[in-house]
Amino acid sequence: MVGAGQLARMTGQAAIGLGIGFRVLAASPTDSAALVLAGAVTGDYTDLAGLRAFARDCDVVTFDHEHVPGAHLAELEKAAADGSGPAVRPGPAALRYTQDKLAMRERLRALGVPCPRYAPVTDLAGVSACAAEWGWPVVLKAVAGGYDGRGVWVCGTPAEAAAVLAHPVAVFAEEHVPFQAELAALVARSPHGQGAAYPVVQTVQRGGVCHEVLAPAPGLAPRLARNAQRLALELAAALDVTGLLAVELFAADGGLLVNELAMRPHNSGHWTIEGARTSQFEQHLRAVLDLPLGDPRMAAPQVVMANVFGSGSADIYARYEHVMAADPGVKVHLYGKQARPGRKIGHVTVVGGDLGGLRDRAARAAAYLAAGREEGA
Amino acid sequence: MVGAGQLARMTGQAAIGLGIGFRVLAASPTDSAALVLAGAVTGDYTDLAGLRAFARDCDVVTFDHEHVPGAHLAELEKAAADGSGPAVRPGPAALRYTQDKLAMRERLRALGVPCPRYAPVTDLAGVSACAAEWGWPVVLKAVAGGYDGRGVWVCGTPAEAAAVLAHPVAVFAEEHVPFQAELAALVARSPHGQGAAYPVVQTVQRGGVCHEVLAPAPGLAPRLARNAQRLALELAAALDVTGLLAVELFAADGGLLVNELAMRPHNSGHWTIEGARTSQFEQHLRAVLDLPLGDPRMAAPQVVMANVFGSGSADIYARYEHVMAADPGVKVHLYGKQARPGRKIGHVTVVGGDLGGLRDRAARAAAYLAAGREEGA
Repeated sequence: MVGAGQLARMTGQAAIGLGIGFRVLAASPTDSAALVLAGAVTGDYTDLAGLRAFARDCDVVTFDHEHVPGAHLAELEKAAADGSGPAVRPGPAALRYTQDKLAMRERLRALGVPCPRYAPVTDLAGVSACAAEWGWPVVLKAVAGGYDGRGVWVCGTPAEAAAVLAHPVAVFAEEHVPFQAELAALVARSPHGQGAAYPVVQTVQRGGVCHEVLAPAPGLAPRLARNAQRLALELAAALDVTGLLAVELFAADGGLLVNELAMRPHNSGHWTIEGARTSQFEQHLRAVLDLPLGDPRMAAPQVVMANVFGSGSADIYARYEHVMAADPGVKVHLYGKQARPGRKIGHVTVVGGDLGGLRDRAARAAAYLAAGREEGA
Repeated sequence: MVGAGQLARMTGQAAIGLGIGFRVLAASPTDSAALVLAGAVTGDYTDLAGLRAFARDCDVVTFDHEHVPGAHLAELEKAAADGSGPAVRPGPAALRYTQDKLAMRERLRALGVPCPRYAPVTDLAGVSACAAEWGWPVVLKAVAGGYDGRGVWVCGTPAEAAAVLAHPVAVFAEEHVPFQAELAALVARSPHGQGAAYPVVQTVQRGGVCHEVLAPAPGLAPRLARNAQRLALELAAALDVTGLLAVELFAADGGLLVNELAMRPHNSGHWTIEGARTSQFEQHLRAVLDLPLGDPRMAAPQVVMANVFGSGSADIYARYEHVMAADPGVKVHLYGKQARPGRKIGHVTVVGGDLGGLRDRAARAAAYLAAGREEGA
């Protein structure tokens, strides 16, 4: 797995369980996954020679992020095609749509997939033309490199748009969707073409960053849930995704609109570690290794996951005492990351039947781990 | 953790989840846990200097087996007491009863805990005297070093007993208990004295080796289950165990009799990874680190675990295709061990509601992984 963040770390835990040889290419020996997994290789994923050297010892190469340059992916794919290198899953033709959001929008439009209205823009006149049609605010999105709210600007006025356009970053414009909820549909697809869909979840964002995931999405009409699963499976097939595909959706008045795509384990699927029969991390491994997929069904009626954010304050481990004493059923996952303010450093999961109670418990545990005090207590 | 077998490997997975620094002392770099966990130290646990060097970097030392010499444990404990070394959990005073089975029997008798009748023996006359009282067969047990059926001989005749006594191994005699079932009561105890008891399980042995674990033990009267849990918690307190204590029991006509003790994660608790809210591996870490214990309750009505044994035949991973295709819900755990015939190389777990169906599924998956064919299919 290229990349050694928390996604690689949790994929590594799943690989240990399955007895599958698993190596990460880490930017630094202190990366989340490199800290805990044997045989981590340190190297630069923007360096083709290093990528090739890493790939040489693999049967399959996969990714914990979408930042490997497309030209390098093409070289790896060429080696896979002529048998001189390992399989690349997902392949560059699919990954392109996570690396270039404008290309993604164009592909989805060609496929007839409902999306927010969008337009390429290069200057304020272009943005103003969009606003004239859609109204303000207008969303400007970086074509490449954005995630976790970075690279997304909600502009309420021409002046705000002008400030974004002053950045040396290619952007495009999207309508601002007044959604009722944000959803995520997570599916897996194997090279054989087998697919498996997890229950659709609701994600709760603040400042563009996911704070909470509710599985299954509360109040979602079964018909819409089935539509979202079918859409994600069809997209995975149409884009030839191997591994996981997370489809982030807006539930709006007119129905479901696709917001973002990711082709890797995804924050909206962390709840599956305890909450589903097969975790997304095991599922990703099974899919990229072309093994039969695991049962994606829930292991409890309701599951809530809350992210833990760094507060910049002292040693987080001392807080374990309090969190564990307060709630013996909360499952804590920490990623071994330095607790810089605002950084995702872990997550907590609770399973059960009572959504309101689970949300309270998850929020309290996450807030305590983040800040050393109970939010609202 | 001293030792790097599958127990250390699975404890390591739990430590990764909790973000707890975890290192193993492995006899070889190809040990099960050393293959997958960063920072494994290779060394000899019978060498005091090596143990001390390993302990130097730890806050707490714990164990995946009971083979560290008692004198070395005493030295580590002395260093812990004067503050020059880390805490040793469980401590040597407790571990002694897993290293010397005759001492264990004597301690349990002194505590008034129901056990099979036993007697020290040194010669055939001694065994015959036991047989005169209890009848044949008589069980001879190695005082030290036995596990997984090794070091236990069921002798039907004086000639069989004589053959065992010819070994250069200290043994004692026990009555052969005609049990209805073998049970295991797994509890955790922290230095604070907090205790947590898992549901009592039934273990199914063949040739003295555990093949199957049924959680909770089917048909066990609630009163007996509570008695077994209480007995295990009381024993953990009486012996000052920190960490896990597994109490293996016979369910016999006269009630429950204690067969064996283990003070570490135990094969009878592997089902807890998917089947309980807190796995035994996380629970052991929480206990030895003196963190509040986790919820030990079941995550499903019924859980079945079956061990996978090596068959000496070819690459086991190819069989994944078949096992996973046949049963998308079976959870496979492989330990990265060479598949020597008869060796435990992994386990499978299935959760649900229908005991008979779960047993069939677990047995089929385990047999297929072991032997490349479905038993009885």
